[in-house]
Amino acid sequence: MKLRRSERMVVISNYLINHPYELTSLNTFAEKYESAKSSISEDIVIIKRAFEEIEIGTIETITGAGGGVIFRPSISDREGKAIIEELRTQLSESDRILPGGYIYLSDLLSNPLILNNIGRIIAKAFKDQKIDAVMTVATKGVPLANAVANVLNVPFVIVRRDLKITEGSTVSVNYASGSSDRIEKMFLSKRSLKAGSRVLIVDDFLKGGGTVNGMISLLTEFDSELAGVAVFADNVQEKRDHLEYKSLLRVTNIDVKANKIDVEVGNIFDA
Amino acid sequence: MKLRRSERMVVISNYLINHPYELTSLNTFAEKYESAKSSISEDIVIIKRAFEEIEIGTIETITGAGGGVIFRPSISDREGKAIIEELRTQLSESDRILPGGYIYLSDLLSNPLILNNIGRIIAKAFKDQKIDAVMTVATKGVPLANAVANVLNVPFVIVRRDLKITEGSTVSVNYASGSSDRIEKMFLSKRSLKAGSRVLIVDDFLKGGGTVNGMISLLTEFDSELAGVAVFADNVQEKRDHLEYKSLLRVTNIDVKANKIDVEVGNIFDA
Repeated sequence: MKLRRSERMVVISNYLINHPYELTSLNTFAEKYESAKSSISEDIVIIKRAFEEIEIGTIETITGAGGGVIFRPSISDREGKAIIEELRTQLSESDRILPGGYIYLSDLLSNPLILNNIGRIIAKAFKDQKIDAVMTVATKGVPLANAVANVLNVPFVIVRRDLKITEGSTVSVNYASGSSDRIEKMFLSKRSLKAGSRVLIVDDFLKGGGTVNGMISLLTEFDSELAGVAVFADNVQEKRDHLEYKSLLRVTNIDVKANKIDVEVGNIFDA
Repeated sequence: MKLRRSERMVVISNYLINHPYELTSLNTFAEKYESAKSSISEDIVIIKRAFEEIEIGTIETITGAGGGVIFRPSISDREGKAIIEELRTQLSESDRILPGGYIYLSDLLSNPLILNNIGRIIAKAFKDQKIDAVMTVATKGVPLANAVANVLNVPFVIVRRDLKITEGSTVSVNYASGSSDRIEKMFLSKRSLKAGSRVLIVDDFLKGGGTVNGMISLLTEFDSELAGVAVFADNVQEKRDHLEYKSLLRVTNIDVKANKIDVEVGNIFDA
């Protein structure tokens, strides 16, 4: 299909946005849009500048035979901080407190725009890591893991707390469930993670760390490696030297009586 | 920020892609990129043409005081059919058969590109419906519902088969679980769906229809309306007059002994 330059720029930038972290050769675009490779090259320069101007990501050009362009989504610190600040306000709303001192999060974690923004912020925080898959535990972590996996363009794997017949053979580990002070089991389908994967663990809420530690021991069972841990919010009471994680928000206090939640920005922007 | 026309086109098209179904006034862009409204108007014409050329969606321009532009994502029938055909091949792989005649789907439903494509195909099939939310049941339906909700830019709600303390007050209904021939319960958090919503139900696999019918009765409890039902694959044995649904794929036969799955294209492209 033959397009004008201005149209070509729109369709090429759209293609790159939908294929993050993929190497696409300039010939692909040249053939698709019946243009000289040199014209495509010029298009890319303009798209690159525009992407950098609004800080939605970088375009790397790799020259030579197997070369092409790779788009890596990002988000400016300014935009990321504004988003977290807005989430901090929302999380502090007193009507989120549930009996038992739990916090209702489901409305935030089911909004596509919020999820996409969180995905971009978490992906950026781990931009120097090689990540082959994103892991989470069912159910509340799934939309978050999905959002991060979308930005990184890698699959996500879902650990379950129950055994489902539709998952085939599974590997299970025991973990200490903080909320119930019990030892429980979690399961991961054998097919769902390749050996030797580098995995980013994502979850909605971190408290005792039992669930995350359970997932880390699953990684060992799958001969895979931890690339990092990211959570939407944490409420970690004491410093845990053994668990490194990045959180978007930190809940410092939940006062059920006074109906008050104190929330700070987490450590995700710390250097 | 002052941009050249070519750069402006890249950033405006990126904005529209990330804000589907939202009305954005031309003044917003004019102020943001320090350009005359007439220039932005010309940009939009070019972007509109490019979007239509590659059939990624339509741009509607609404004139007058409260006017602006709305981007509605879509997918060409040709691309949609090619994607489904590829999925049909993958679903027919004999090593997906699990003991009991179940089919392993998790690898397909955890791949961001596949999910995004499925989301676009399902959203297009319901493009004439007003949809306020997408509903599914935990866990396997979540990534699908998430994908469709992303394209429609509406929230998704997750029905659970177990009662979680972090969901607050819930409404429950009984449903007939086809696989176990038992009556079970499903739960939905009271806060998660506004009364008067029009809801698209999305699930991974439809067999007896018990789960979907359970979700439909939940809609009544929430004074909400069914906009439609879409599933990734169905294996409906007999014609069910009472349940209208659209499926991407139809599993016509699972032969555990011969290790063979027969899969056809579903009814999603039927007029």
